[in-house]
Order: sequence, then structure tokens, then C-alpha cells
Amino acid sequence: MREAFHDELDSVYTDLSAICELVTISVERATSALLTADATLAERVISADDEIDLARERVEEKSFHLLSLQAPVAGDLRMVVAALRMVGELERMGDLSVHVAKIARLRVPEVAVPEDLRPTLSRMARIAEEMVTDVVTIIAERDVSGIDDLHPREMEMDRLRRSLFTTMFAEDWTHGVEAAVDVALLGRYYERIADHALSVANRIVFVVTGEPAVIS
Amino acid sequence: MREAFHDELDSVYTDLSAICELVTISVERATSALLTADATLAERVISADDEIDLARERVEEKSFHLLSLQAPVAGDLRMVVAALRMVGELERMGDLSVHVAKIARLRVPEVAVPEDLRPTLSRMARIAEEMVTDVVTIIAERDVSGIDDLHPREMEMDRLRRSLFTTMFAEDWTHGVEAAVDVALLGRYYERIADHALSVANRIVFVVTGEPAVIS
Repeated sequence: MREAFHDELDSVYTDLSAICELVTISVERATSALLTADATLAERVISADDEIDLARERVEEKSFHLLSLQAPVAGDLRMVVAALRMVGELERMGDLSVHVAKIARLRVPEVAVPEDLRPTLSRMARIAEEMVTDVVTIIAERDVSGIDDLHPREMEMDRLRRSLFTTMFAEDWTHGVEAAVDVALLGRYYERIADHALSVANRIVFVVTGEPAVIS
Repeated sequence: MREAFHDELDSVYTDLSAICELVTISVERATSALLTADATLAERVISADDEIDLARERVEEKSFHLLSLQAPVAGDLRMVVAALRMVGELERMGDLSVHVAKIARLRVPEVAVPEDLRPTLSRMARIAEEMVTDVVTIIAERDVSGIDDLHPREMEMDRLRRSLFTTMFAEDWTHGVEAAVDVALLGRYYERIADHALSVANRIVFVVTGEPAVIS
């Protein structure tokens, strides 16, 4: 009974890690669609989101099943509850990459991001992608030694977002209101993807150590 | 044992409803701070968020305790799991009203929203507030008869957001980039508050009927 429980719990975490990989692909493709004004790729991101939603439902069913039939306690219970919370965040990360893809699609054949802001926005996208990639491993191996790498990245993300705003609000901004609004929203989406990645990682710290992460 | 369980489960839902009331106050005050450039009120919203966070922790502890000691099944299990999901959404709604308050504070003594967009943004805020207020009752009484009122409001929210963008992207927009970015982000925050309200209401539909809401 206990062994069957742990096999099923492992399979939930394997699923979570696989969803996180789908999110990684989704974020990477959305960014690529954004920076190359590729409508086809943007469409692929948007339609692939259904797969993430279905995978979330499967994790929810499995977790519910585990709670219902096995009535886990202590650390095991914590792991099942954490899985239910994380899968919601992973789905949300997928939704945010869909939002990026939708802005990309809306501006085709133009690139939504003005050329001089592309390095900053690319870097924000890259940070988000790296954080999501790290979380794939953190979930799969429940190895939280990489968590310390996530915080400096989140801080860099915050600095980059501020620098976007400084550029857009400067007197010499020539790209108009529409581009500024697009960039502000895109910055927000990448920042939220990073926030969720950190939050998921912190949940793993909690299930592994039984204590909240020191910095959150 | 079963009676004790249901008393404790009721108390979790009473707590959730109380948190939702705190969110209502937070959204109302953030909007008032925004539209009157009231820095003191904005600060109150920001500092009051700790109370929502603490209340969330209490709900999480109680829910975990229920799962751990009572091992509920079927509908009871569904209610505890839903509580854990909803409390995360309610906390997030509180965070979003803090974001509104922070934009308000940043622009004091100016009002962040240009005068001609205030009616639209006030209406969006009002819709969000009304939806959150409805959810207080839906949670407290597990009465989902009011759910049909939420969907038209969400659709109106979507229309208003589009009209904000049309106004800001028009040739005759004279308020500059900063105001446009503020308004775009504010619109996004209110829309997300409304999304979460609808999502929480749909979770209640699920715990009451055992079926997902027809429209989601």
C-alpha cells in the first residue's frame, strides 16, 4: 500500500516536471515568435496550451485520488497538497506565455518590441526561461540545491523591468504609446513567469525540508 | 468525529469569506486612493495586506489539519482541497489591489488616471468590487445562484479594457506614455481581480454541484 502510494506520488511529480518542460517550450517559442514576428509560431504556442491544461487535469485527478484512497499524513500529505498548488502555478505560467504570443501575433508583420529595447526584453525572457528550466530539475529530483541561483535572477529581472520603464518614460522615447504599452505588459508577463517559477521552487523547498525557503 | 469535522470545515469557509471581505475593502480603498491621489489611503492598503497573508496561513493550517487528522473523502475532500486553492486566489487578489495602490502612491499628488479615462477605469474598478462582494456571499452561503450575474460583468470588463486601449492608441491621445502604461497596467490588475473572483465562484460551483461551472 505504502509502496503503491509512493509510486503514484512519484508519477505525479514526474508529470509536474513534464508540465514544467512544456512551459519551458512555450515560453521559448513565445519569445521567439515575439522577436521574429512569427505568426505561425505564435499560433503554435496558443494552441499548445490545451495540452498543458489537460496535463494539469490529470495531475489534479491523480492527486485527488491519492488523498482520497490513501489518506496520506505528514510529509506525504504535504507533497500531494504542494503538487495541487504547483500545477495551478505551472498552468498559469503557460497562460502567461500565451499572452506573450498573443501580443506577438497582434503586431505581425511588425515586431512588437522596438529595436533598442530588444536586448533588455530578450534578457528578461532568457531569465524567465532559465528559471523555468531550473524548476524542471528541481521538481523532478526534489533537489533544492539550485534554489540559490533563482534569487539573483529574480533581482536582475526586477532591475531590467525598471530600466524598461526608465527608457519608455524618457523624453526621447520615439516609439509611441502602443509600443510602450506592449513592452510594459510583456515585461509584466515575463516577471510573473519568473515569480511563479520561484514560488514553485519554494514549494519544493518546503516539501523537502518541511521549512519555508529562507528568502521568498 | 464527523460533526467536529463539519464544524471545522465550516470555520474554514467562514475564514475564506472573511478574507474575501478584506479583499473587497482592499480593492475599494485602492480605487479610492487611485482616483483621489490619496497617499495615506494607498499606504493603508499596502500595509493591510499582511493581514490577508496571515489569514491565508491560518486557512492553510486548518485545511492541512483537516486533511491530516480526518482524512475526508468525496465531497468533503473536494471542499478542503477547494479551500486551499481559493485561499491562494484570494491572497493574489489582495496583492493585485496592492499593485493598484502602489501606482496611486507613485503618482501622488497627481491622479495616475487622466480625467477622460476615469469613468471607464472607475467602472472597471466597480465591476471588480461588485464581483468580489458577490463572492463573499457565494463562499459564505455556498449559494451559487448568483453565479450567472458574474459572467456578463466579466464580459463588460473585457469591453471596457478594449475601449481603454482604443482611446490610448488613438492619434489624439495627449497624455503621454507614462499615463498610458499606468492605465494599461491598472486595467490589467482590475481584470485579473475579476478573473480570480470568477474562478473562486466556479470552484464553489464545483464543490456544491460536483460538476464544473457550465461557462468558465
